[in-house]
Amino acid sequence: MVNLFRTIERDMKKLELKLKEFLRIPVPLLSETGLYLLEAGGKRMRPIFALLAGRLFCGEENALFTVAVAIEVVHMASLAHDDIVDDSALRRGRPTLAARWGSEAAVVTGDYLLAQAMQLIYGLKNRALAAMLARTSTEMCRGEICQIQAAHDTGQSIYDYFYKIRRKTALLLSMSCEAGAVVAGAAGDEARALRQYGQCLGMAFQMVDDILDIEATKEELGKPVGSDVRQGVITLPMIIAMSGDGAEAARLRELLARKEKSAAETEEALALIRRSDGIPRSREAARRFVARACQKLPLLPNRPERAALERLAVMGLTRRH
Amino acid sequence: MVNLFRTIERDMKKLELKLKEFLRIPVPLLSETGLYLLEAGGKRMRPIFALLAGRLFCGEENALFTVAVAIEVVHMASLAHDDIVDDSALRRGRPTLAARWGSEAAVVTGDYLLAQAMQLIYGLKNRALAAMLARTSTEMCRGEICQIQAAHDTGQSIYDYFYKIRRKTALLLSMSCEAGAVVAGAAGDEARALRQYGQCLGMAFQMVDDILDIEATKEELGKPVGSDVRQGVITLPMIIAMSGDGAEAARLRELLARKEKSAAETEEALALIRRSDGIPRSREAARRFVARACQKLPLLPNRPERAALERLAVMGLTRRH
Repeated sequence: MVNLFRTIERDMKKLELKLKEFLRIPVPLLSETGLYLLEAGGKRMRPIFALLAGRLFCGEENALFTVAVAIEVVHMASLAHDDIVDDSALRRGRPTLAARWGSEAAVVTGDYLLAQAMQLIYGLKNRALAAMLARTSTEMCRGEICQIQAAHDTGQSIYDYFYKIRRKTALLLSMSCEAGAVVAGAAGDEARALRQYGQCLGMAFQMVDDILDIEATKEELGKPVGSDVRQGVITLPMIIAMSGDGAEAARLRELLARKEKSAAETEEALALIRRSDGIPRSREAARRFVARACQKLPLLPNRPERAALERLAVMGLTRRH
Repeated sequence: MVNLFRTIERDMKKLELKLKEFLRIPVPLLSETGLYLLEAGGKRMRPIFALLAGRLFCGEENALFTVAVAIEVVHMASLAHDDIVDDSALRRGRPTLAARWGSEAAVVTGDYLLAQAMQLIYGLKNRALAAMLARTSTEMCRGEICQIQAAHDTGQSIYDYFYKIRRKTALLLSMSCEAGAVVAGAAGDEARALRQYGQCLGMAFQMVDDILDIEATKEELGKPVGSDVRQGVITLPMIIAMSGDGAEAARLRELLARKEKSAAETEEALALIRRSDGIPRSREAARRFVARACQKLPLLPNRPERAALERLAVMGLTRRH
């Protein structure tokens, strides 16, 4: 396990170099916006899972890193576009690309990065991977669209929420795990187990994100708390908190349905959610998804990477940012 | 030739049906925005060329229509995103998608359509086509980025202009011709000839567009004249008009460099360009590109489709919208 952590650390350094190299684009604006997205950091969660999944099957390193880079670049592209969609001014404590360079530049940067990721994946000459990327992109858009359409809609069910976060978050993490395994030559049932692991984990991760957006501090998040409430994105803790019969649930429904909320109203809504059982019950739901993810692991080779996948899954539940 | 025109007409009807079917998306907002883009019409220039190129080699109809639909969808996706980039309020006489549904919806619609086009192309299991699409998308983004960066830059050369329109317009038309040929099983040198034909023709088409934006009427264009001048997009007639030593060229340089222009200043700039030799010389340049396009045709099978490709090329020079 110690050796594995050393490998992961080395992999992460190599990944940063490869990403930087990849984003050395001979078009001034694009290299600036690309590097800006890169330097915003993030957890590089998706490539870590892709590399671990690939290493579990002793995959060839070059192809594995190509997949890892491509997936992180797809993620960066989606961030560039989501920030236009979300109209967010801050991400990870810094102005978003759209806020700094304008939506035009953010749109084209995202388009360019996605096209480049497609080219990377094609280069591997693996049809399954290319099809996976196209399918995942399509579904990610559907998730984003649902989020736009369902904004301020307090009638959403838990099912609607799951539909949305599965597409918005879980599928790309799922693809990361599956693609790492596929490029490393895993068998069909092993790749499927990793896909399911990644999907359950992605669901749990998004739930934790949605919880943190309500109960973390601004410092922990790197952006103001309550952005979901402000933007009318209805998340699981809110759905649960709104489901009661009492006056507080009714008041919360009223507040969340408003398209324009004052700062005081946002605070009031946050306080109502925090006082309800929305957060503990959402945590419990996330915990169940992590457990389901881990249930898939015994189908995989018993190697240190498998233990790492289990540990990362559990760690995701207690993170604060 | 008469039979061929009947075939083209039938193909166009079939294409409309296929596009409509393709855009019957089970996500309410997406099916609305998709159909809106579809109903905006347009000339369906790219699929016509793809179908003609494919029919020239007696290609199988299903695969050919898949390519034609995918390429038109890529074009629609780029329009959805360009309208955000261009900040245009009208396209083909109607509000743009971004103006009507907001940039968020326009971004996701474009992303979704592109992902769907990728899926269509993958379905053909032809690696050359998939790689072509990824490469073309990448270069189209570069063209768009150049346009953003070079806005209001009156120091641009004719070379800069060619670099930009090649990527913005010519490559997708070039891909249409090449992809139609490839999917129909054309030989390498025939596919190449069609790629070059499409590229020269695409250059000419964009030049004619840029000329019309200066000298057509609002009714012909379906949008206000002079949008390039207003948005600071420097086109060939402007570059030529600015290149003189006289006072009018100097005044034009001064006007075009301004980021904010009054309506009177826009009119003044348009009048200066119209009075210069920018338009006749740009027409001559477009004519030369059409001639170069047609020079590639003798390399292709001598069939009615080839004559149609020649006629379409020449007709492009005299269109008024």
